Amino acid sequence: MKRTVQLNPIGSMSLLSQLEVDRLKKSTSSELYRLFRNCSLAVLNSGAQEDNYENIFSPYEDFEINLLRRERGVKIELINPPELAFVDNKLIKGVHEHLFAVLRDLLHMGARYEGNLFVDQSESTHITHMVFDMLRNANAIQATGDPNMVVCWGGHSIGETEYKYTKEVGYQLGLREMNICTGCGPGAMKGPMKGATIGHAKQRYRHGRYLGISEPSIIAAEPPNPIVNELVIMPDIEKRLEAFVRTAHAIVIFPGGVGTAEELLYLLGIMLSEQNCEQVLPVILTGPKESEDYFNSIDEFVGATLGKAAQNLYTIIVDDASEVARTVRENQPEVTEYRRQKGDSYQFNWSLKIDQDFQSPFSPSHDNMSQLNLHLEQPKADLAAALRRAFSGIVAGNVKAEGIEQIKQKGPFSIHGDARLMDMLDTMLESFVAQNRMKLPGNHYYPCYKLVK
Amino acid sequence: MKRTVQLNPIGSMSLLSQLEVDRLKKSTSSELYRLFRNCSLAVLNSGAQEDNYENIFSPYEDFEINLLRRERGVKIELINPPELAFVDNKLIKGVHEHLFAVLRDLLHMGARYEGNLFVDQSESTHITHMVFDMLRNANAIQATGDPNMVVCWGGHSIGETEYKYTKEVGYQLGLREMNICTGCGPGAMKGPMKGATIGHAKQRYRHGRYLGISEPSIIAAEPPNPIVNELVIMPDIEKRLEAFVRTAHAIVIFPGGVGTAEELLYLLGIMLSEQNCEQVLPVILTGPKESEDYFNSIDEFVGATLGKAAQNLYTIIVDDASEVARTVRENQPEVTEYRRQKGDSYQFNWSLKIDQDFQSPFSPSHDNMSQLNLHLEQPKADLAAALRRAFSGIVAGNVKAEGIEQIKQKGPFSIHGDARLMDMLDTMLESFVAQNRMKLPGNHYYPCYKLVK
Amino acid sequence: MKRTVQLNPIGSMSLLSQLEVDRLKKSTSSELYRLFRNCSLAVLNSGAQEDNYENIFSPYEDFEINLLRRERGVKIELINPPELAFVDNKLIKGVHEHLFAVLRDLLHMGARYEGNLFVDQSESTHITHMVFDMLRNANAIQATGDPNMVVCWGGHSIGETEYKYTKEVGYQLGLREMNICTGCGPGAMKGPMKGATIGHAKQRYRHGRYLGISEPSIIAAEPPNPIVNELVIMPDIEKRLEAFVRTAHAIVIFPGGVGTAEELLYLLGIMLSEQNCEQVLPVILTGPKESEDYFNSIDEFVGATLGKAAQNLYTIIVDDASEVARTVRENQPEVTEYRRQKGDSYQFNWSLKIDQDFQSPFSPSHDNMSQLNLHLEQPKADLAAALRRAFSGIVAGNVKAEGIEQIKQKGPFSIHGDARLMDMLDTMLESFVAQNRMKLPGNHYYPCYKLVK
Amino acid sequence: MKRTVQLNPIGSMSLLSQLEVDRLKKSTSSELYRLFRNCSLAVLNSGAQEDNYENIFSPYEDFEINLLRRERGVKIELINPPELAFVDNKLIKGVHEHLFAVLRDLLHMGARYEGNLFVDQSESTHITHMVFDMLRNANAIQATGDPNMVVCWGGHSIGETEYKYTKEVGYQLGLREMNICTGCGPGAMKGPMKGATIGHAKQRYRHGRYLGISEPSIIAAEPPNPIVNELVIMPDIEKRLEAFVRTAHAIVIFPGGVGTAEELLYLLGIMLSEQNCEQVLPVILTGPKESEDYFNSIDEFVGATLGKAAQNLYTIIVDDASEVARTVRENQPEVTEYRRQKGDSYQFNWSLKIDQDFQSPFSPSHDNMSQLNLHLEQPKADLAAALRRAFSGIVAGNVKAEGIEQIKQKGPFSIHGDARLMDMLDTMLESFVAQNRMKLPGNHYYPCYKLVK
Repeated sequence: MKRTVQLNPIGSMSLLSQLEVDRLKKSTSSELYRLFRNCSLAVLNSGAQEDNYENIFSPYEDFEINLLRRERGVKIELINPPELAFVDNKLIKGVHEHLFAVLRDLLHMGARYEGNLFVDQSESTHITHMVFDMLRNANAIQATGDPNMVVCWGGHSIGETEYKYTKEVGYQLGLREMNICTGCGPGAMKGPMKGATIGHAKQRYRHGRYLGISEPSIIAAEPPNPIVNELVIMPDIEKRLEAFVRTAHAIVIFPGGVGTAEELLYLLGIMLSEQNCEQVLPVILTGPKESEDYFNSIDEFVGATLGKAAQNLYTIIVDDASEVARTVRENQPEVTEYRRQKGDSYQFNWSLKIDQDFQSPFSPSHDNMSQLNLHLEQPKADLAAALRRAFSGIVAGNVKAEGIEQIKQKGPFSIHGDARLMDMLDTMLESFVAQNRMKLPGNHYYPCYKLVK
Repeated sequence: MKRTVQLNPIGSMSLLSQLEVDRLKKSTSSELYRLFRNCSLAVLNSGAQEDNYENIFSPYEDFEINLLRRERGVKIELINPPELAFVDNKLIKGVHEHLFAVLRDLLHMGARYEGNLFVDQSESTHITHMVFDMLRNANAIQATGDPNMVVCWGGHSIGETEYKYTKEVGYQLGLREMNICTGCGPGAMKGPMKGATIGHAKQRYRHGRYLGISEPSIIAAEPPNPIVNELVIMPDIEKRLEAFVRTAHAIVIFPGGVGTAEELLYLLGIMLSEQNCEQVLPVILTGPKESEDYFNSIDEFVGATLGKAAQNLYTIIVDDASEVARTVRENQPEVTEYRRQKGDSYQFNWSLKIDQDFQSPFSPSHDNMSQLNLHLEQPKADLAAALRRAFSGIVAGNVKAEGIEQIKQKGPFSIHGDARLMDMLDTMLESFVAQNRMKLPGNHYYPCYKLVK
Repeated sequence: MKRTVQLNPIGSMSLLSQLEVDRLKKSTSSELYRLFRNCSLAVLNSGAQEDNYENIFSPYEDFEINLLRRERGVKIELINPPELAFVDNKLIKGVHEHLFAVLRDLLHMGARYEGNLFVDQSESTHITHMVFDMLRNANAIQATGDPNMVVCWGGHSIGETEYKYTKEVGYQLGLREMNICTGCGPGAMKGPMKGATIGHAKQRYRHGRYLGISEPSIIAAEPPNPIVNELVIMPDIEKRLEAFVRTAHAIVIFPGGVGTAEELLYLLGIMLSEQNCEQVLPVILTGPKESEDYFNSIDEFVGATLGKAAQNLYTIIVDDASEVARTVRENQPEVTEYRRQKGDSYQFNWSLKIDQDFQSPFSPSHDNMSQLNLHLEQPKADLAAALRRAFSGIVAGNVKAEGIEQIKQKGPFSIHGDARLMDMLDTMLESFVAQNRMKLPGNHYYPCYKLVK
Repeated sequence: MKRTVQLNPIGSMSLLSQLEVDRLKKSTSSELYRLFRNCSLAVLNSGAQEDNYENIFSPYEDFEINLLRRERGVKIELINPPELAFVDNKLIKGVHEHLFAVLRDLLHMGARYEGNLFVDQSESTHITHMVFDMLRNANAIQATGDPNMVVCWGGHSIGETEYKYTKEVGYQLGLREMNICTGCGPGAMKGPMKGATIGHAKQRYRHGRYLGISEPSIIAAEPPNPIVNELVIMPDIEKRLEAFVRTAHAIVIFPGGVGTAEELLYLLGIMLSEQNCEQVLPVILTGPKESEDYFNSIDEFVGATLGKAAQNLYTIIVDDASEVARTVRENQPEVTEYRRQKGDSYQFNWSLKIDQDFQSPFSPSHDNMSQLNLHLEQPKADLAAALRRAFSGIVAGNVKAEGIEQIKQKGPFSIHGDARLMDMLDTMLESFVAQNRMKLPGNHYYPCYKLVK
């Protein structure tokens, strides 16, 4: 028996013109529709402990999502949605909001850009405009308020001790009235939010923000955890990364796998630019005692590839959650002061320079992967950019639908480069595999890459 | 000595991207700049008792307005602004808001439409989209709330008794928790708002809305009165009229001159359409005892030109402010029910059909005015559309800068038509002149038209 | 036919225990009931232009008010209430609030004090506690917020020019985001509130406070005007005066009659105390050009009786509303600073010393009036206290029910004193009569006093 | 080195008169001071895992608390407070609030009742008034809002599985937008609040209430957990119980020890009264699979002592958290309807009849304990009252300072009664001991009672 649920629009989606609804409806007949359906399904599965998109999607093959046109606007119709998202037959409010965030970011904003003469995605300022516009449209940028957004990165698949530690850091940040932004999924993306909730409650901080920034190809593998109360889905991984760094007033990096490595390399690549040498942005690498080796090997890798200057951009703090939070908090006046002096926004870091190299979407095809310029003899920022892409490709091969499909068809990516660099990379990737950081435990990991010296 | 004031952005203008600011700054070098400057000056003169734009502008020839680009967005710089708008050297908050509304509607929204591939101003649904988009962007459309917006039309130049009566009607509407929307200026556009303020205060109705909808060429002659707490400047007179009727849950028409006649003809022309025969929209013509004759002559003119069906679309209530308010209030459940049944929005009347004839901008040149099809032997809606344009042209000749300029150069407009129709028109226009409805008292009126049979 | 209306409790009256309701119900069988009924009737007549309590009450002889006990609390039942207070058969919300303020202050707080062992009305600190407790219980004291309450005193019966001026001062104060507190009635008690409403609207100051402080025997003659959004009824005239001065961050005195003179004398008597010599409390006497003589004669009287020191306590500003508001505003930082230094509340002036002489209720019987110590050869503060009482008695004889009754029975009060003082007093009182300040115009004034040298 | 912290008042304590502050200061010289100090210390220890008051207090022998008088009110001074309550040297906001709740309920309200002629603690309606007044004064009773307060009872010392289950029930209740009220401590008093926090977050229910109702002698052993955002300290255990049942719209009982048994007996005793036979109050006994036996033995005990009628008053649900929450939710419309029909408050159950027998404070001295009338041949309600007292005494002997002191001095309480009843009691108490429900694990339990047949 078919189960059907109709949902009224909420948030900015409750005020659409008929022209906009018509355009939305048209989108759903396009190939975009499958993406929209899958992101919606991911959101409806929020809370499930699973990172294999096939396992997530297979029980719901008869799930459909439709847009209904009303005189006054648009409704969403769900057919055979997962039970998980309902309480006594009523959709959970947070999931309801997330569904309309998917509609907003994928279809509505998509249509906006398609028809916009002025925005040219090959220009750096235009890309930054899009990042800003997506966040603004999601109400994720506020005109007032002091800096207090901590971006937390780290693995979706981490051990219990590491997970507890991320919660403790979140709790200590919450006690200091900092908000949390992560990539939306489980593990290190959920722990800090959960901890902050309790810290905020103790401080009677009523408007805690738990901002999740995702992108279409990752959201299925990392659906927004239940604490996320603001969800934004950026069009691609590069805009997602830009959104993170322009939103951040501090960045805390927990242990993770290739995704976390991608994020760190992206950040270091940008911050190494001469034009960002005055930027004030505290970056802390932290984990419990057990993770000390992990950070040592990361630090070594960074030192060997990007040098001392890159290492100076972050602080490593082992097993001291309050110290992490205190460091973040104590640096905020300096962050504020820097923004004030530059005439910059407190909520969006316009003055951070991001080279187009870090903004252009990288498509991890076998060709592109094999042509990465992975040699030590080049400017550090270029090397960082290339390494970032290498890790990005491995993430795709590990958990993204399209990537997995390619690997199935053509075998693992070949990654070519300097012998010395390849060795270092190999060591690090091996350790990720050994530490179960590539996939959630219980799934055997088959590498999607091979390193060629 | 030059006096300079810098203003921080407020409302939606406080969250602009650098790309948007660049585009705004470009606008100010264009010919649009003069319009922007003049509208800003009008807003800064809010509260002045004057409808002659030259008298308003002449003391401020050294007034300038600039946009300043900051890393975080845009600031407005005023040079030599009118003292009137300041208290102890600080700009009045309401005027501050209005200035950024001018920036938003004229420059920001202007740039948005210029670059939008999808909006085609020659298509009816696209024009309606623009009207909606302008209002939505100004936060003038709310997703929730029961119908309670009363659009009040009437002359900017009315006598003391009439003015007091408009205040009394506003007071009675306010006591019944209705909000007020008018065209922004003095007279019948200010009285109902002022009265409603007191009615709202007595009912502890804390979020009273006093919505002013203007357009660039009229705002100088009719600057927003001080009560207006939401200001929207539509791109042209036709979109302004559409904004009025789609926003209205009831329309109250006070005595006025040609502008009011234009509004009435517009409304009747639309409502006469077969497709609107089920629309629920209470329309009340009202004034004090002294205005009884005025309404009789209007009613007669409507009867003779548009017929009984048009007369049935409104109710005339003489000298009974509570009865007006009670009638409006009592009809609201029916308005709500109609919207509910149609699946229509409670805040924007999508189901009202407006023919393109009423949407296309009419430019009142001497040529266009002389070619109006003013003959009784045509469909009523067409006649209403033609008459609406005739009145619109006379308004332009009376108070709008461009219109006055044309009249100065080429003499009065010639208006051609049926002898019988011309006679009726002549009678009515003469009475407007005799009753001082064409210009604020103290200014002699020189007709800007001649009727040719 | 009997008309009956039942009202649900609002504000703090909506949370009463059954014991409290029982006690309230008992009060209504006592003689207090008549007072409660009359105050309620006065509140229901809010807005009527009348200061003769007999004229107010006579049309409503069949008006009754009852308290109904419900499991959950108390309801008020009105029988045959004035139509004036209703809109389409629904009681105006503001009047509804005021009715429950009467119940709260007269019956509920009355019962609280009756049963309170600890409060001893013969001790100064206890009286101040009561004043505070009444205001706190009415939510008229806020824990946060900067000083901005301007107490405005002046006649209920003033001319049109003076009334317009009080509105203009209120408007200018409102533009500077000051709130208004007055004695509740028409004239100078209404004008500043009405003006401030518009000033607040222009500044988008949304939580304007229009605090009316009355007392049971005056409220019938001076029912709260419609703008009053907080009403407190103090138990007697002395506590009302104390509430004014402890609430004030500035005091503006408009032209008035004996009531205003009473207020001024009270204030000067207190401020002359050595212990208040450091108090920061701006006091401004102001009126339009026409009132210049009025203030000159007041100033002369003060100089001749209380001396130069008393004259130094106030500033006279003639016909310059913005100057009044600017002076008030500019002094607020000093007021704040003084409170801060003293560790005093920003909302209730605890550090102001009020001698018990100014706190003990004065009952204006013929005996008490004839025994006032009106001689120039005594300490200034004592003389101020005695004069204050003389004026208080005349107010009672003019407009209070009990006072009028006494005068009817025993003829005018005899007031004895120094020949020189009596002459000065005579001159001043004569001028009040001549200027129609004793009663609303249209009523002939028969003096309720005779001066005996 | 002495560490000193001064705290500004918050909540209702920020608006005290000088008279009230004087009275507060006097209290601190009385014997009440020790109680105030200890409760404050308990609150400062919130979050510590400890139920032995001596262990809690011993590290803080040099802790002192003082009241400081300021012109504007009162400040609290802490000397050598526990570090636990501070983040970067700033007191956690929630603890700050709780401290002033202690001041309010113990000293301020204490003084209020001492001086109140009208309240007579030997009369039932007066006791109920006090309960209401305490809650109202703490802002724990709201004038509006639908019924949604679930009172959760259960042990402070429960196993991990049981604790997780209480969290799950709280989560399911939170998903259904129910609020939580408990007795403030750890275990079953913390779990439901913690779970509800997440449920509320998912439903974007922003104003979740986590109401803790304690009393002075238990708060040290069961300090408010960090989630409690409203804390009320009732004067004695009987008023605490009355506060629970009059506040509840449903009661959920988790496994616990003698305290929970006391609560259940109290509830059944009241509900068995003829006058409460129509009351609508869902009562659910629930726990995980492992607790099934526990509830069976309770149920048997109730059946054997109070009979079938008592058993009918509750539902037992085993291991089905959603079913518990669904049952509670589904019954709310009936609760609302009953209140509506009775004219009763939605927030305080006035119509619930509580015999004085259940209201009078029971002092568990050795004498009183030995004289309890524990015989089966008496009316059920009387038996319930006697049993309730027996359990109350054992709670005191287990965890309250005074009780433990008595037991130390005079040995265990002797409890006399029917052989059959004593046997049943013995069985149940033995099982509590065996299941570690008397004390937190790690502490050996020495019974504070002996049963005498």
